Amino acid sequence: MIYADNAATTKMSQTAIDTMVSVMQEDWGNPSSLYTRGQSAKEVLEDARAKVAGVIGAEPREILFTSGGSEADNQAILSAAALGRKAGKMHIISSAFEHHAVLHTLEKLRKEGFDITLMDVHENGLVVPSEVEAAIRDDTCLVTIMYANNEIGTIQPIREIGAICRRKNVLFHTDAVQAITHVPVNVVDDNIDMLSSSAHKFHGPKGVGFLYARKGIRLSNLIEGGAQESGKRAGTENVPGIAAMAAALVEAYAAMPANAAHLTKMRDRLIEGLAQIPHSALNGDAVQRLPGNVNFCFEGIEGESLLLLLDDKGIQASSGSACTSGSLDPSHVLLAIGRVHDVAHGSLRLSLGEDITEEQVDEMIRSVKEVVEYLRGFSPIWRDLMSGKKEFIL
Amino acid sequence: MIYADNAATTKMSQTAIDTMVSVMQEDWGNPSSLYTRGQSAKEVLEDARAKVAGVIGAEPREILFTSGGSEADNQAILSAAALGRKAGKMHIISSAFEHHAVLHTLEKLRKEGFDITLMDVHENGLVVPSEVEAAIRDDTCLVTIMYANNEIGTIQPIREIGAICRRKNVLFHTDAVQAITHVPVNVVDDNIDMLSSSAHKFHGPKGVGFLYARKGIRLSNLIEGGAQESGKRAGTENVPGIAAMAAALVEAYAAMPANAAHLTKMRDRLIEGLAQIPHSALNGDAVQRLPGNVNFCFEGIEGESLLLLLDDKGIQASSGSACTSGSLDPSHVLLAIGRVHDVAHGSLRLSLGEDITEEQVDEMIRSVKEVVEYLRGFSPIWRDLMSGKKEFIL
Repeated sequence: MIYADNAATTKMSQTAIDTMVSVMQEDWGNPSSLYTRGQSAKEVLEDARAKVAGVIGAEPREILFTSGGSEADNQAILSAAALGRKAGKMHIISSAFEHHAVLHTLEKLRKEGFDITLMDVHENGLVVPSEVEAAIRDDTCLVTIMYANNEIGTIQPIREIGAICRRKNVLFHTDAVQAITHVPVNVVDDNIDMLSSSAHKFHGPKGVGFLYARKGIRLSNLIEGGAQESGKRAGTENVPGIAAMAAALVEAYAAMPANAAHLTKMRDRLIEGLAQIPHSALNGDAVQRLPGNVNFCFEGIEGESLLLLLDDKGIQASSGSACTSGSLDPSHVLLAIGRVHDVAHGSLRLSLGEDITEEQVDEMIRSVKEVVEYLRGFSPIWRDLMSGKKEFIL
Repeated sequence: MIYADNAATTKMSQTAIDTMVSVMQEDWGNPSSLYTRGQSAKEVLEDARAKVAGVIGAEPREILFTSGGSEADNQAILSAAALGRKAGKMHIISSAFEHHAVLHTLEKLRKEGFDITLMDVHENGLVVPSEVEAAIRDDTCLVTIMYANNEIGTIQPIREIGAICRRKNVLFHTDAVQAITHVPVNVVDDNIDMLSSSAHKFHGPKGVGFLYARKGIRLSNLIEGGAQESGKRAGTENVPGIAAMAAALVEAYAAMPANAAHLTKMRDRLIEGLAQIPHSALNGDAVQRLPGNVNFCFEGIEGESLLLLLDDKGIQASSGSACTSGSLDPSHVLLAIGRVHDVAHGSLRLSLGEDITEEQVDEMIRSVKEVVEYLRGFSPIWRDLMSGKKEFIL
């Protein structure tokens, strides 16, 4: 069994599970309570906040705990929009292949009168900083560009974009859900004003995430109610989940240099192997890419059938984002980098785990080759391509 | 050590912890993924939905999982407001002593042009159905009244209010965070259109809750993004937390008749004992009251000092809602039932756990008596009361 869908979710580390269980059993008080049990939960909470802040170079008070990356994205963008509206600045810049937590929030804002510019991500899946600079207007209140893409794994020039935004005095948010613990992220060095992250992408629990917001940035509430999280996020804090997230983050961050080196090697071996399949193409830049991300298009096949047959062979992978699976539309990410519908339909994302071996990589190459060949054997599109009725694109 | 703050949070049951750990270790896939591991997580998720629905008399598709009660309250109210706005109905009815997750959301809507009527809860802490009926106007889009109050434990005439709303064709939401597993709640019998609940109040995990919305009610998203939860709540589902919530709910619901009988007996013994303290008064109705809730005011003392000294004696209690502790303002709930500031400041909430014993109740009575007497010994207000400079209210 090879689990190659770590971009969708990861297995919790034993450290994270142990932390969670310990807090559920020992420090289960309400951190807002005044008595001892409440205060010990409060200490666990603030210890987690300090740990999370430490990893990304922030101050503890700049960390707000949320129920995950989507909530953090929503809150960051709506907060910037509220500030923009007040200042009469109603233009937002983003990219065409952001996560839907960003794009759908922007769509909501568009209906409320905001003007949204989506930057081209070009064929290699990279935003060009000078193009962002050119797109910034006097009424721009926010630039939101993801740190690394969830489907094709391209790593954006965040530091450069951040520097431009700071110079132009425009807020800069990044959805770093896929980047954290895979590439070094430092909010100060990277000129980031707001950042979203999700625990279950780095071997932490589901249902927990955090939003970094540089001090001085006034957040709006997404969830109104009690005075938790400095009054900016109501609801009793998920202390066990937050503590487990912090433990997983610290653990994964410490292992990052070694893991990234190993994953990059495995990734490149996998890319090399899959590139030998005729009429295939890697999606996204080969270098500016997450260590564990491989994403290919194979002409003449359906991604969904590919996944189901790979599952039969014990390989668990994805055609794109898990958040939209079940949808028949091709990935908006692949369309954004210029893949046509037919080609985008035949996509495969393999996102490797840190414990992946060379043997497993070779097994994946063999299995994907077999399955692609098999599926092409009875694909009408493939027949048309082979007979010349249709022209090959890849 | 007596934990008497179960309205703030409860200790997770072993069943809930075991369920959580098992799902974290075995069914940790992303439920949106097509392969086997994803589908097993999906099955866990849908099994939990069916269990939750079964307990409250709903259909599984009527259950939306959230990060807790506050999120559910926010989404329910904002959804009803969006529907109201479309229909030109911008009047909402609630009560003066709702949880802040409701009141602050209503405050936000008021700023957006909604007209909010807060029903009087009278001295006994009960909303009067005929008064709700009289308050409903042609432009009323929502009535939101909590099932049971989080501070004084009064149980509202939900079924009657629901019947009125149904007859008048107005949506009816109830924050049932404090009621679920303490009193029988059935959304059909109780004429409820939307209901909020939170797992950590019934020995489930923190960071998980659910919103029931009767089929046909179009919810708005609070969190935009992926297509999870029928497109109405984005973000990878917290499958382990959700499964643990369902397990805790089923367990607590099965034990409810026995627990409620025991708790009611212990509660009444505690009330009887504390009532012997001079110049004290029970807050809220003595009969229409949660089985485990005791809430008193003691004249001439400060609630916070009372709590700290009780903590020293091994009794963990609260002066009101944990969500607002740390605030110096007296409880809005106690003000709503007509307590004056001075008296409201001297409040104590004891919310009993199911395993409370008669001996512990008697110990609490002794300790509270001692501490109240001790604090009155050097309270300037008490001196003024005793010397006749000030008049006793209680």
